[in-house]
Amino acid sequence: MLGLMQDWALTVDKIIDHANLNYSNREIVSRSVEGPILRSNYGQVHSRSKKLSNWLKSQNLRFGSRVASLAWNSGRHMECWYGAMGIGLVLHTLNPRLFADQLIYIIKHAEDEIIFSDISFAPLLEQIIPLCPSVKSVVYLTDKANMPQTKLANVHCYEEILEHENDECQWGGFDENTACGLCYTSGTTGNPKGVLYSHRSNILHSYMSLTADVMGISSSDVVLPVVPMFHANTWGVIFSAPMVGAKIVMPGAKMDGASIYELLETEKVNFTAAVPTVWLMLLQYLESTNQRLNSLKRVLIGGAALPERILRTFEDKYGVEVRHAWGMTETSPLGTVCTLTPEAMEMSKDEQIAIKLKQGRAPFGVELKIKRDDEAAPRDGTTFGNLMIRGPAIAKSYFKSEGGEILDEEGYFDTGDVANIDPQGYMQITDRSKDVIKSGGEWISSIDIENIAIGVDGVAIAAVIGHYHPKWDERPLLVIQTKENFEVSKEEILGYLNGKIAKWWMPDDVQFIDAIPLGATGKINKVALREMFKDYEFPK
Amino acid sequence: MLGLMQDWALTVDKIIDHANLNYSNREIVSRSVEGPILRSNYGQVHSRSKKLSNWLKSQNLRFGSRVASLAWNSGRHMECWYGAMGIGLVLHTLNPRLFADQLIYIIKHAEDEIIFSDISFAPLLEQIIPLCPSVKSVVYLTDKANMPQTKLANVHCYEEILEHENDECQWGGFDENTACGLCYTSGTTGNPKGVLYSHRSNILHSYMSLTADVMGISSSDVVLPVVPMFHANTWGVIFSAPMVGAKIVMPGAKMDGASIYELLETEKVNFTAAVPTVWLMLLQYLESTNQRLNSLKRVLIGGAALPERILRTFEDKYGVEVRHAWGMTETSPLGTVCTLTPEAMEMSKDEQIAIKLKQGRAPFGVELKIKRDDEAAPRDGTTFGNLMIRGPAIAKSYFKSEGGEILDEEGYFDTGDVANIDPQGYMQITDRSKDVIKSGGEWISSIDIENIAIGVDGVAIAAVIGHYHPKWDERPLLVIQTKENFEVSKEEILGYLNGKIAKWWMPDDVQFIDAIPLGATGKINKVALREMFKDYEFPK
Repeated sequence: MLGLMQDWALTVDKIIDHANLNYSNREIVSRSVEGPILRSNYGQVHSRSKKLSNWLKSQNLRFGSRVASLAWNSGRHMECWYGAMGIGLVLHTLNPRLFADQLIYIIKHAEDEIIFSDISFAPLLEQIIPLCPSVKSVVYLTDKANMPQTKLANVHCYEEILEHENDECQWGGFDENTACGLCYTSGTTGNPKGVLYSHRSNILHSYMSLTADVMGISSSDVVLPVVPMFHANTWGVIFSAPMVGAKIVMPGAKMDGASIYELLETEKVNFTAAVPTVWLMLLQYLESTNQRLNSLKRVLIGGAALPERILRTFEDKYGVEVRHAWGMTETSPLGTVCTLTPEAMEMSKDEQIAIKLKQGRAPFGVELKIKRDDEAAPRDGTTFGNLMIRGPAIAKSYFKSEGGEILDEEGYFDTGDVANIDPQGYMQITDRSKDVIKSGGEWISSIDIENIAIGVDGVAIAAVIGHYHPKWDERPLLVIQTKENFEVSKEEILGYLNGKIAKWWMPDDVQFIDAIPLGATGKINKVALREMFKDYEFPK
Repeated sequence: MLGLMQDWALTVDKIIDHANLNYSNREIVSRSVEGPILRSNYGQVHSRSKKLSNWLKSQNLRFGSRVASLAWNSGRHMECWYGAMGIGLVLHTLNPRLFADQLIYIIKHAEDEIIFSDISFAPLLEQIIPLCPSVKSVVYLTDKANMPQTKLANVHCYEEILEHENDECQWGGFDENTACGLCYTSGTTGNPKGVLYSHRSNILHSYMSLTADVMGISSSDVVLPVVPMFHANTWGVIFSAPMVGAKIVMPGAKMDGASIYELLETEKVNFTAAVPTVWLMLLQYLESTNQRLNSLKRVLIGGAALPERILRTFEDKYGVEVRHAWGMTETSPLGTVCTLTPEAMEMSKDEQIAIKLKQGRAPFGVELKIKRDDEAAPRDGTTFGNLMIRGPAIAKSYFKSEGGEILDEEGYFDTGDVANIDPQGYMQITDRSKDVIKSGGEWISSIDIENIAIGVDGVAIAAVIGHYHPKWDERPLLVIQTKENFEVSKEEILGYLNGKIAKWWMPDDVQFIDAIPLGATGKINKVALREMFKDYEFPK
């Protein structure tokens, strides 16, 4: 027997309708790519999104056609999202930091038909659009005065388009499972794969992120999403902020310490979200200029593990609460957020720090499982295994079935991370699953050994890789790059590790090289490292 | 094109699974009907709910069968909800405050097959069960030692049932629109009508209520729902608290000031919810005993309009934030909650009080419309009309189609209230729609006139009813009950009203009677009042 409650489809057009009706004057402030700060509000964003919908309806697109954006966070970019999604188009966010050939691959794979772009990407588009046959036109998110020179056909000016449209347009009215957003993961191996969000998944994800232990923002908050809109939906902020009527401050292209600080202060931002690198830049700026944070109350940090120094500086020096978060494109991106339980609130400061450095707890709507040798591992805070995730805002497959089946028999997605979960539900990532070492059926965390080995005086970088062993399948090989003018011996390092890790975790050998290969973001490139040692053999 | 996100049904069994996995030790504390305080936790509630499910599966029920509860708030009552809902049964909450013949009508109409009851209702059940042929058995929510004497056949002891069952039971796996709860409205006219909640509506309602501007509770909160579980799902707390891992304190049958105060203090409650009457009792108790509230931070008040004195006393004297709320059984019950917007936070204290006495703003997932003469009224804060409501947790029809079609052509439900909405989205109820006076196409609020007339010295009760008028259809008739030993004249009263209300709102006559008829809850019984004046004619 079915219940007798109203059929009310969870579609994202209702979000901006709600914001327009209840918070029409609440501001959307954008640092424009052209320079000036632009001030808009939910009422204007709503009206302009509707105008854009009307223009899109005249462009010979089909229901479900992809239109792309190549843009920094701004009010105009936000209008593109709602204008496209409201009429059943799929908004595909392109990451402008990708190489040109990656962008071409993605645009062709997605079959994007229109590209909305900031003017700063005009040189890039001149180069790639001729190689993307699906693209019918480019719209520059600017006014007539700032339109770039172009050799491309069918280039439009965003503000000119809106001038000629009216804001009467019927939105929604379709299945809540309809696709509305597309974002490609920049996987380290293979081609990028597209995650296809639905209206329903975005709404449910927003509700999750609005719970008190996740973001908990309200109509009185001022939110600055430094995290770009092309990174997993701005971590949902573009949907969740209008749901509650929070003011949004958009940083545009400038994420340096001085620019972010200026917006935090002038717009009285009290909540913000970004990757650790952004906060390192801000904290350095604050230190070098001896400034204070006068409005900021909470900061969400994700995208990479939270360094303890950032955590302590924000909390101790600036009185800002730090929430460590973990997620990925495939998870919309909310996986976990770290807030203290009542039990943790009773602990010492150092114990609390240890908890806050974990990736956090899952809200209702996210199910986590630690899987090891096809079985669920205990939630004891030490047993680690593959981190699996399930929920209404988690991908079940990639666009056009790239990568085939991606869920296990219980419907969980494999995150590619290795983690443990403690009895209080705090999840901690200990490794990437491709880097974990499987020795005779037991798992060894490469990162744990590296974190200890780096403590040896003179060690600059320590990297542990699993290496072929005839008896144990794999055994840990520790590779060391010493600091300039330092000499460290194998015995010294093993002696230091001894007693700090389990006996069977002890590396079978230590090798010294001049330069451990690093990736673009400064992380150890283990693929290259394994390649370097592919002919190596452990000492008998 | 559909999105590619996981199919994860919104069913309430997942709530208690989540609480068990992440917050198994978080307490559920209940004042039992038998007397002692019982301490349980989410882990135990989960395990015991599963045991109950297994017992229910042995009782020859069908998917969708109704099982009823006649019980105060307690951990055991909570287990009945999850135990029944988890396997696709419908939990029907019976209101023990109804008259026996109303209960019989409702039980028969719902075709309840099992009744879970507190032992205090044994005398009532002995009387009514023989008249309810659908009921196969009664389960008393107690242990063997406290089982009541009974002449009924098939009476079970709850704790004995659980002793014989194991806690392995598959929950869920059905359509999220499956019915899971039934609650009858005690309408003032006609037979009670059943609202049939779905799993989906309860989950979405919980997400709404967890947003910061509604309840915003988190894992570190301790929640005392004084509002009974048979009043529109405890205002959702039985679902929303386990979603975030908040501790729950259940008051059982005792809602007097001393008993509530004891629980607030000993259990360190920081959030609670109830009707104004409960808070009047608590505040009187606090005043007479000169006690303080040491943990309480926020109180949600709904079910009737918030008296200004309660608001001011809580906030000024005890430092407790008051959130005025409005809802009804048909709305799950969340309609609006009153929290201050940033604009309101800038206002004077008295202006803020005026806002807080309004019923509040709608969260995302609740759509409001003021309808007058078949048209939407402007949101100007003065124009009032029928309050219409739409959303995924709002009824679309009653059980067994009682009352026929209840939605308008746009899918809105008519609340029966008359209200206005201001430009900031604050809704204010001004009347019941059956009490509003429609004079020559214009609407006059009976309550507004009453609230002013009560200010005349010597007036005890002022009631305004619409009365037949040959030209205007209806005109306001003001009926006055004076205080003992006071005399007030018609001229005095009309003189007082003059200038305070619009000229065309002025009552056509004032009549004095000894006793204005009141209902059981102290409200003016306008049906009886209209009956008294049915032969009255306005002076020419």
